[in-house]
Amino acid sequence: MSAPLSDTAPRPLALSLGDPAGIGPEVIVAAWDQRRAAGLPMFFAVGGADILAAAAAVRGLIVPIVPIADPAEASSAFGHGLPVLALPGHGAAYTPGAPDAAGAALALASLEQATRLSLTGAAAALVTGPIAKSLLAEVGFAYPGQTEFLAAACGLAAEDAVMMLAGPQLRTVPLTVHCALAEVPGLLSVEHIVHRSRIAAAALQRDFGIANPRLALAALNPHAGEGGKFGSEETRIIAPAIAALRAEGIAVTGPHPADALFTARARPTYDAAICMYHDQALIPLKALDFDSGVNVTLGLPIIRTSPDHGTAFDIAGKNLADPGAMIAAIRMAGECSAQRFAHARSGERNC
Amino acid sequence: MSAPLSDTAPRPLALSLGDPAGIGPEVIVAAWDQRRAAGLPMFFAVGGADILAAAAAVRGLIVPIVPIADPAEASSAFGHGLPVLALPGHGAAYTPGAPDAAGAALALASLEQATRLSLTGAAAALVTGPIAKSLLAEVGFAYPGQTEFLAAACGLAAEDAVMMLAGPQLRTVPLTVHCALAEVPGLLSVEHIVHRSRIAAAALQRDFGIANPRLALAALNPHAGEGGKFGSEETRIIAPAIAALRAEGIAVTGPHPADALFTARARPTYDAAICMYHDQALIPLKALDFDSGVNVTLGLPIIRTSPDHGTAFDIAGKNLADPGAMIAAIRMAGECSAQRFAHARSGERNC
Repeated sequence: MSAPLSDTAPRPLALSLGDPAGIGPEVIVAAWDQRRAAGLPMFFAVGGADILAAAAAVRGLIVPIVPIADPAEASSAFGHGLPVLALPGHGAAYTPGAPDAAGAALALASLEQATRLSLTGAAAALVTGPIAKSLLAEVGFAYPGQTEFLAAACGLAAEDAVMMLAGPQLRTVPLTVHCALAEVPGLLSVEHIVHRSRIAAAALQRDFGIANPRLALAALNPHAGEGGKFGSEETRIIAPAIAALRAEGIAVTGPHPADALFTARARPTYDAAICMYHDQALIPLKALDFDSGVNVTLGLPIIRTSPDHGTAFDIAGKNLADPGAMIAAIRMAGECSAQRFAHARSGERNC
Repeated sequence: MSAPLSDTAPRPLALSLGDPAGIGPEVIVAAWDQRRAAGLPMFFAVGGADILAAAAAVRGLIVPIVPIADPAEASSAFGHGLPVLALPGHGAAYTPGAPDAAGAALALASLEQATRLSLTGAAAALVTGPIAKSLLAEVGFAYPGQTEFLAAACGLAAEDAVMMLAGPQLRTVPLTVHCALAEVPGLLSVEHIVHRSRIAAAALQRDFGIANPRLALAALNPHAGEGGKFGSEETRIIAPAIAALRAEGIAVTGPHPADALFTARARPTYDAAICMYHDQALIPLKALDFDSGVNVTLGLPIIRTSPDHGTAFDIAGKNLADPGAMIAAIRMAGECSAQRFAHARSGERNC
């Protein structure tokens, strides 16, 4: 399954709303408001027209909402208003900070429809607003997160959808995510590391235009285990994975002591750091680039990005949410989409 | 046991050489060279006069070496040369990048003598150069690191010497250090967290002049375990420790998701982050402040700081080592020493 490519009119990005009681609607309207200064590609929101209008009012922004019935209409609307695709049957009131089941159902319908439009090629890429997983679960969402949902929607195994966090100074790929730290060592294997690193390398080529991606594999243990003194995962698992990846021609280094891997001096030496657990990947990214981190899903037939923050119910509706990460996610989705298109064209020419 | 306080002449800091084949000698002479621009307090090196002279030559620096027989002589020498206390019977050649047993013996003798002079009060504080633990072990050093050595030298249990890493943007205290990541959950306990946090809070008052130190306790698991879904250490261990510390009147918050704790927005909300494992404390510190991180040992009767880097044998003798962390360590030792003196005087007045 792969989204068809068109070289006629530029296609818009599809933005799912996220939980309407979170900061998603606010950062979407703020991104549209800053579209020129930020150099953003054309996009439309899926559902929630009234909520987006209310969120614009909260922020004191003039954002005309332009209802559209088809993504193709976004092009003519985008210059003077935020195109919003109708989601018949899904209404919810704007109750920032007070999520409810109707809002969760709208968030889910928006995500499902935006995904479909990306898969059919009607949208160039998918940018997802932040959801509240526990609330979505109550309205039938059966996935640990949006990444796993997207893998299934694309007909792939969860293992094939690889999360990457990208900021201006750093890209990281966490190999394990939502599990207790105590479970991490048991979840690592040579196969897992090789599989995900391979997907990351291919995506950096295809979607980021990096001809020979350089991956840096983090160690699990402090000082990379100091020669086996503090844990054997480096010698038993990570080093063999590095050898296997090198045998495939992928440029990989490591296992690097994790505290040395994210210094200003080390960061320019690789294109992505492959990390063994959630906080190893997220701590440096957020310490360096909190307001502009983007969550990218690699390995899918569609381009998908997301701002690297949650619903932030505590500040929703207060005109406090920083749209920087949403703006970065929209920009990156546009760039990756253009790169993938160019990559495919170059592949056609080479055949 | 406590170093006697004198309010007559200012006392110099004692610098241990570190492994003479590492970058220790280079950064010591470079720090002396930059003493005026960096506003450094008076210091002397313990041993290695010939090695320090050779290291200065490698860096193209004019650093007159002034042999002294007593720390009290440092004062008159410091303005025109680097005072170096003789260490009779300990000679070693300058072989940068090629450590040997004679060098390790010199490093150990230097550390022992500098510690003694700090304990007697002849030196105002101790700044330690980087050592190679495996080499020191071969000449009889029976400790996992300098921190544990210093606890023993001061007559304390290892548990009472608390490592803190301090940079311009962040202070972190790792509660576990040189162990496999898999062992970390089993090493955490309410008692351990409370004991070390208490020492950290007291030291921030006494040595850093912070009247009411604010500690932020990091979670162990991603998203702080998300209500027990990914591990129970937050509810079983960290939250009870926080309650116990609050009951003692210490300002503590947490457990904080570790990826949210080191953002630019979060950092100003605490004076030190108490971290559950080595890389949790070191990743953000080095990502933000690699060249100026200082390792401080809290809870000792002496002030002890150290540059937060290793021997770096690979770049030793090549004029590549950045003296920033050594300069920061010397400056912090001087500041902490002055703070502790002021704190003690204020205590006397209050009695």
